[in-house]
Amino acid sequence: MRIARFSIDGNVAFGAVEGEGPDGLVLDIIKGIPYAEFELSGTKVPLSKVRLLPPVLPNKVVAIGRNYAEHAAELGNEVPDVPVAFFKPTTSVIGSGDAIEYPSFSNELHHEAELAVVIGRMCREVPRERVKDVIFGYTCANDVTARDAQKREKQWARAKGFDTSCPLGPWVETDLDPSDLTIQATVNGEQRQLGRTSDMIRSIEDLVVHITEAMTLLPGDVILTGTPAGVGPLHVGDEVAVTIEGIGTLTNKVIKRG
Amino acid sequence: MRIARFSIDGNVAFGAVEGEGPDGLVLDIIKGIPYAEFELSGTKVPLSKVRLLPPVLPNKVVAIGRNYAEHAAELGNEVPDVPVAFFKPTTSVIGSGDAIEYPSFSNELHHEAELAVVIGRMCREVPRERVKDVIFGYTCANDVTARDAQKREKQWARAKGFDTSCPLGPWVETDLDPSDLTIQATVNGEQRQLGRTSDMIRSIEDLVVHITEAMTLLPGDVILTGTPAGVGPLHVGDEVAVTIEGIGTLTNKVIKRG
Repeated sequence: MRIARFSIDGNVAFGAVEGEGPDGLVLDIIKGIPYAEFELSGTKVPLSKVRLLPPVLPNKVVAIGRNYAEHAAELGNEVPDVPVAFFKPTTSVIGSGDAIEYPSFSNELHHEAELAVVIGRMCREVPRERVKDVIFGYTCANDVTARDAQKREKQWARAKGFDTSCPLGPWVETDLDPSDLTIQATVNGEQRQLGRTSDMIRSIEDLVVHITEAMTLLPGDVILTGTPAGVGPLHVGDEVAVTIEGIGTLTNKVIKRG
Repeated sequence: MRIARFSIDGNVAFGAVEGEGPDGLVLDIIKGIPYAEFELSGTKVPLSKVRLLPPVLPNKVVAIGRNYAEHAAELGNEVPDVPVAFFKPTTSVIGSGDAIEYPSFSNELHHEAELAVVIGRMCREVPRERVKDVIFGYTCANDVTARDAQKREKQWARAKGFDTSCPLGPWVETDLDPSDLTIQATVNGEQRQLGRTSDMIRSIEDLVVHITEAMTLLPGDVILTGTPAGVGPLHVGDEVAVTIEGIGTLTNKVIKRG
C-alpha cells in the first residue's frame, strides 16, 4: 500500500494512494494513524486537489554516508570500516513539491538520491532477523548537501542539516522488496545519478542493527541509506527528481532563500 | 526564575522553583507553557515529592565541539577554524536523577560538562544583536560521549547520540548572565572538570548566529556550548554531577544498560 500525508482545505490527513497515472490517482482517507491498525474511510479525494506533505513526521532522521563504493570513490573517499552515521534534523524535512531553499552559506549545493527506510515500531537493539518487523515502508529521499560546507566543517550539522535539506516523498510504499531497485536522480529532466540498491555496501539489516545498537528508533523515524554515484550541483531554478523503482518520484524545485 | 519540568502522581507540569536548600525547595505550578506568557498557579509542591524531568522537550539539540582551547588540546585536537556542530537526538535526553546507561558498543564512556542554552522563540538567521531575544534561559548539560566510538566513527551519531547520552537539568534559569560562570564536573564527589564560560572560543552569540545561518531553531531547542578541560572516564556505579554557577547541579548515576 502507498500511504501519503497531505493537506486539503487546511486539514492534514493520511491517505492510501489508489489508481494509476498522473490524473487517475486518488487518496482514500485513513481513519487513525498508519503505524497502528487503521481503516480506510472510503472518502476519496483526487491527488491533484491536495498538497502532499512529508509522508512521515520523524522524531529523527539518521543518515548513512558512503554506502555505495562508486560514490565514495567519486568524492575521493575510502569506503569506511564502520558506517558513517549522522543526523538530519526534523526542521530540514520537506515533502514532494516543496522548495529546496539554497542556503546563504554555500555555493555548492549537491543532490544525493537515497532510499529512505521508514520505521514502524519503537525499537532498540534489533536483532538482524527481526529488522523486517520494525520497518513500516520505504520512500524516496534527497540528502541535499552543501558540499563546500561539508568539506570545511568537520561535523555535518550545517552542511546536511540546513532547512529544506531533507526532501522525503512522495509517499511511503509498505509492500516492497528493497533489495534490488533502481534509484535515480534527474535535474531538469537530465539523468545525473543511476544506481541499484543492491550495490549498497551495508544492507538495510546491517544499518538498522548498527543504529539501534546505540539508540531507540520511534515510529516515523527515517533511515537514509546512502547515495549512488553521480552526485552533482544544484542551482536556483533547477528541478531535481529522485525516482525509485516501485515507489515513485520525489520532485523539488530549488529557489533562493527568501 | 528557575523553571523545572516534573512529574507527580502521573501528571507532567512545569513549575517555578522557589526557596533554598535541599529540603526547602518548592515548585509553584505554572499555568500554561513557559515559552509564552504564563501565570504561577500558587499551587506549591515540595521538590522532594516530584520526579524531575528534562526541563525542556527539545525538537533538536545542537552541540558544539572543541570550544575550549584546553579541552581541544587534551584530546590532541587543533582549535577548529569553523565551529564543529553536531546533533544529539531527542531520544538521548534525560533529566537530573535519571540513569546514564552504559552502551554495549563502548568501553570508554566520558563525561563532558557543558552550559546549555535553551531557545525561547522560533528563529532563523538571528543577527548578533538579537541573540539575547531568542534565548529563554540556561541549564546544565552532560555531553556524554563514547570516546572510543568517537575515534572510530567519522561522524558522531552513535558516539554522542546513544540513548541517555544527553542529561539536561536540573531546571532552566531564565535570569542569568552566562558570560563568566564556573562550570565543573565531579565524579563520586571528586572534581574532574573545572572551567569558566569566559574561556569559550566562540561566544554564545557566535554560536547562535552560526547555527541559525543554516537552520530554524524552535522553542525548547537546546545548544550545548562545548566542554572545558578535564574530561575523563565514567564507569558503571559512578555518580557524575555537573554544576554551573547560578544554575545548580545536574546529577546522574551510570548503570549497566538492562
